[in-house]
Amino acid sequence: MTTPAESIRLGDRGALARLITLLEEEDPAALRVLAELHPQTGRALIVGVTGAPGTGKSTLVNALAREMRKGAAGTPARTVGIIAVDPSSPFSGGALLGDRIRMRDLAGDEGVFIRSMASRGELGGLSRATDSAVRALDSAGFDVVLIETVGAGQDEIEIARQAHTVIVVETPGLGDEIQAIKAGILEIADVLALNKADLAGADSAANALQAMLDLGGPRADGWRVPVLKTVASAGEGVADLAAAVLRHNDHLHRSAAWEQRERTRIERNLEQRLRARLMEDWRRGRSGALEQAAGRVAAREVSPEEAVEALLADAAFAPGGAKPKGRKK
Amino acid sequence: MTTPAESIRLGDRGALARLITLLEEEDPAALRVLAELHPQTGRALIVGVTGAPGTGKSTLVNALAREMRKGAAGTPARTVGIIAVDPSSPFSGGALLGDRIRMRDLAGDEGVFIRSMASRGELGGLSRATDSAVRALDSAGFDVVLIETVGAGQDEIEIARQAHTVIVVETPGLGDEIQAIKAGILEIADVLALNKADLAGADSAANALQAMLDLGGPRADGWRVPVLKTVASAGEGVADLAAAVLRHNDHLHRSAAWEQRERTRIERNLEQRLRARLMEDWRRGRSGALEQAAGRVAAREVSPEEAVEALLADAAFAPGGAKPKGRKK
Repeated sequence: MTTPAESIRLGDRGALARLITLLEEEDPAALRVLAELHPQTGRALIVGVTGAPGTGKSTLVNALAREMRKGAAGTPARTVGIIAVDPSSPFSGGALLGDRIRMRDLAGDEGVFIRSMASRGELGGLSRATDSAVRALDSAGFDVVLIETVGAGQDEIEIARQAHTVIVVETPGLGDEIQAIKAGILEIADVLALNKADLAGADSAANALQAMLDLGGPRADGWRVPVLKTVASAGEGVADLAAAVLRHNDHLHRSAAWEQRERTRIERNLEQRLRARLMEDWRRGRSGALEQAAGRVAAREVSPEEAVEALLADAAFAPGGAKPKGRKK
Repeated sequence: MTTPAESIRLGDRGALARLITLLEEEDPAALRVLAELHPQTGRALIVGVTGAPGTGKSTLVNALAREMRKGAAGTPARTVGIIAVDPSSPFSGGALLGDRIRMRDLAGDEGVFIRSMASRGELGGLSRATDSAVRALDSAGFDVVLIETVGAGQDEIEIARQAHTVIVVETPGLGDEIQAIKAGILEIADVLALNKADLAGADSAANALQAMLDLGGPRADGWRVPVLKTVASAGEGVADLAAAVLRHNDHLHRSAAWEQRERTRIERNLEQRLRARLMEDWRRGRSGALEQAAGRVAAREVSPEEAVEALLADAAFAPGGAKPKGRKK
């Protein structure tokens, strides 16, 4: 009998899909399998793709996957895992639509594995689930893992940061609100794709974006973020985009920035897991404590600040709990 | 000498602005002032406005503020606080653009207070800062507090949930990706505004949205989510939107759902504050522990799961720390 970890190492897609489903639920046995697979990880190139809704990210991700499968920029063909993350779907299966489009484009290719993830309802939960799925795909031997996020909020940025290389997707001629978004999101871009570049104003938008990106000079690690025009629906510019991703990957390795990124990536993930566990541990044996405190705050008997202090102080007396001292001011 | 809390109660806008700035930084003295002001809170009607970028939320919020100032639906004039939250701007002042537009529209009205908040860099931090700002405005006597979020991700949903009444803004004729977003975000709507209703397809979009919303029948509390067509830039439909918000507010009070919402609101905020404090307490006296663990995970010596267990187990030996027992499996 093969263990689940062995099945995944041997390329069993069914076992991989089942593991990811269990990881989404943070199943303890599945997390043990993931821990067992950890030595096999660290080989995949992890690429985050983020940008506002309507920029054509899904189509671009599909086109990029096809390009990587062929062997981008004269390199050998790669296997590709895709994780489509939808933080805006806390309750329903909003990611399903994207799934169907994707299935149609990439169906029948054994070298591609596609997975959608909706929110776990709690801030940070989706981020942990995405990290777990990336590690599962990495350990299963996928050369490239593409993490696509719907939307462009803080969550998406957080998730995109789990990647080695981040592609930010923009389009020409979007409104002021989009312009405002750029400010924050541009700072996480390693490669900028100006998609729908057949629309009017693409050239001037590309120039403006490149000028904005160049404003601060090259990054500390010497990388200059390139702006690449793409028309994902027609496959235009996608080969160049794939080449830019591979070039960034080379750059990371040559400049020793790879190790730094890998460390930061892992540190963020550890912190998120730690946060969740601290809360989980706190809750144990204190059922109803938070609800009771909320009632007192609602009645204006205590302020939220006092309630939190009381809940933390109370920890020492609750069954199975003890809290770090030295916080009372 | 008046204390900061008294100044704010007495309507000193400068003191209010300074307090909110300090609250954004989670300044301990500012948090004590907020605790002191807590008995004065609970009077404001808190309205969340969320929706995808490009739906014209800022313009709609401004128009709604003007309507509330006039005294919507034949009611007395209200003072309005506006908090514009931009989770997608973790580093730069992306919200500044919206600010300028807003200032132009509402400048010179003493009954309006406007504030932008960018992300605090950490998941949950912005949510706490927004809650603090809402409470400050509430204690300063503002009748209505409008929380506007850029974007439509999980963070925005989380922030919108801090409100008593949530307006979700949609527009006719957006692409598939937006349609997919709706699934999740519709479930938090109390009132749906179909803005830019002068665009083609507005009537059929409104009907489709109303049909989607009616699919599950009325809410448990008896509320039927209305779809209202607006053209915010021309002020059209805004009076009806304001009236719907007030109607929802009445409904909450009549159906006793108000208390439930207030409880849930407070409970979520307490939990967020507790989470942050647990992590903060854990960090104390353990500087470098997380970074060291990340290094071992990067070297594939231990898995992230093992690293987290080790970090939690180590708590018992670290200076000033003790952890809840009984977790080792």
